[in-house]
Amino acid sequence: MNNRIGKRTWQFSAPAIIASYATTAGIKENEGPLGGHFDFIFPDNLFDEASWEKAEQKLQQYALEIALEKRGVESDTIDCLLGGDLLNQIVATSFTARWAGTPYFGLYGACSTLAEGLLLAGTLLSGGFAQRTAVCTSSHHDTAERQLRFPTEMGVQRAMTAQWTVTGSGAYLLEKGQGNIGVTCGVCGKIIDNGTKNNMDMGTAMASAAVDTICAYLDDCHDLASLDYIVTGDLGHIGWEICQKMLLQRGYDVKNKLLDCGMLIYDKKQDTHAGGSGCGCSATVLGAHFLPQLTEGKLKKILLVGTGALLSPTSTQQGESIPCIAHGVVIEQLH
Amino acid sequence: MNNRIGKRTWQFSAPAIIASYATTAGIKENEGPLGGHFDFIFPDNLFDEASWEKAEQKLQQYALEIALEKRGVESDTIDCLLGGDLLNQIVATSFTARWAGTPYFGLYGACSTLAEGLLLAGTLLSGGFAQRTAVCTSSHHDTAERQLRFPTEMGVQRAMTAQWTVTGSGAYLLEKGQGNIGVTCGVCGKIIDNGTKNNMDMGTAMASAAVDTICAYLDDCHDLASLDYIVTGDLGHIGWEICQKMLLQRGYDVKNKLLDCGMLIYDKKQDTHAGGSGCGCSATVLGAHFLPQLTEGKLKKILLVGTGALLSPTSTQQGESIPCIAHGVVIEQLH
Repeated sequence: MNNRIGKRTWQFSAPAIIASYATTAGIKENEGPLGGHFDFIFPDNLFDEASWEKAEQKLQQYALEIALEKRGVESDTIDCLLGGDLLNQIVATSFTARWAGTPYFGLYGACSTLAEGLLLAGTLLSGGFAQRTAVCTSSHHDTAERQLRFPTEMGVQRAMTAQWTVTGSGAYLLEKGQGNIGVTCGVCGKIIDNGTKNNMDMGTAMASAAVDTICAYLDDCHDLASLDYIVTGDLGHIGWEICQKMLLQRGYDVKNKLLDCGMLIYDKKQDTHAGGSGCGCSATVLGAHFLPQLTEGKLKKILLVGTGALLSPTSTQQGESIPCIAHGVVIEQLH
Repeated sequence: MNNRIGKRTWQFSAPAIIASYATTAGIKENEGPLGGHFDFIFPDNLFDEASWEKAEQKLQQYALEIALEKRGVESDTIDCLLGGDLLNQIVATSFTARWAGTPYFGLYGACSTLAEGLLLAGTLLSGGFAQRTAVCTSSHHDTAERQLRFPTEMGVQRAMTAQWTVTGSGAYLLEKGQGNIGVTCGVCGKIIDNGTKNNMDMGTAMASAAVDTICAYLDDCHDLASLDYIVTGDLGHIGWEICQKMLLQRGYDVKNKLLDCGMLIYDKKQDTHAGGSGCGCSATVLGAHFLPQLTEGKLKKILLVGTGALLSPTSTQQGESIPCIAHGVVIEQLH
């Protein structure tokens, strides 16, 4: 039986097995600390496409193609694909779903979309609606920059609090059955808006949402000791600092356990300021860094907390503060 | 037990009871055939807000507030809110979720979002993850026009094949338990792209997706005779015509049973050309027209097929064709 643990944590009757996964990334990401761990590197930001947007779609489609190939199955065996991206109307994901030809739920959770997708995929599998699901997300620095900030060619000086949108994608096949690693439970995030309005400092805005979800999970499950890491994706350096201080105020000392995908993907020398961000950030770091360690038994259990800033350029221009969300999923080694 | 019927239809172990619902709409919508059946009419397109976008958010929040009031419950009793809208980064819905303070999954399915939300809400309820869910969607003619087409003030001459974005919203509370009407099963849509590129003619683009989902359901369930209506939302006059012809070619004569929300909401005299569209179209027509008839026993069973054109202005400018989707849900009188 699927269960509620405590107030907000959903426990799946059986783990959603992560049967296969793949990541694609750009040159800059491959020059960072996780270089060599991605499945496919795009040689430039266009990769033979006529636009950055089309290249982003290719990043995502390649990730899904590789994940399917590793599993030795075709896309028509996917009962449901869930995903999203940062492009207006999430076109990168919808065109990937067109290629896949599978049933599809489009999601929008900004940088939390991967966790949102993993959580919903888990509910569909354990609810008995699917045997195999796919979760895909992507982002591309140049598409995000020109859509959400300034024309990319302007080369506007970036604030030191700003994060750098990751060029990359991750695709995950979640299935019913037996396997080595799986998603066992999760927390659906709430919108938390701490009143900040600076769209060049998402970490400060998103930290409160991450704290809400992490506390919801720890209050429900009381298992901080059994977690190897709480992995936020992606607060960056500034948000990570705020998050761990706020958690300490709430009674949870997680300093040695709190990692952030936005801090792991780039080296400080790469001049990305506050770190990485984008739907592709947690999507690549999970697959390139954490899942291999879980598979090899170096890690036993992590709480992935995808954080998203759900503002739009229009809402910012109209003076609104930044509504943020964080969805959490527990990923474990199963035996 | 939740079940798969045939290839693609998901059957819920117990119906997702539609325990309450409410609709809000603009003046033009209230001057149409469904006038007088909406719960709240906005007196103008701004309704004391500083922007159309803020007014759209208010449309959605009011719908949810009224639905909660009718049910006599507060928003904190909602286990999960699902929804979306047409605004970039679905900000109308995220700000509504901020007001509600509930766990929230942001969705993007363009005009199919209501059906996507109802289907996912059904899986969460019957999967044992929630007792009460809310599904909200909205659209606003002036926000959609300036974001997706031309600056609204330009008053560009509209193509005769174009549809008019509905100013309106619907909020639905779906629950576990006993009730008069409920969602009993549904079909998750696939992306169908028939190659058309004319973003002033969505009906032609979306008809193929509607046909795919309707046939998936009828092939699985063989119950055309028991359906009072198949309700597409929103193909408009042109798409409806194409849809029923294509269904006939596939062996399903639905001419007297096929209705379309985009055709029902405006009178031909209102000069909306091919009919209504937008996330608020099926959201208002379902609540203002069909659910009351199901509640009163005038109808027994409908298949609501939310249709969405998942293009973006950028994908159109870059020469892409229009990827479309249709999600289906069966709504029945239960006793």
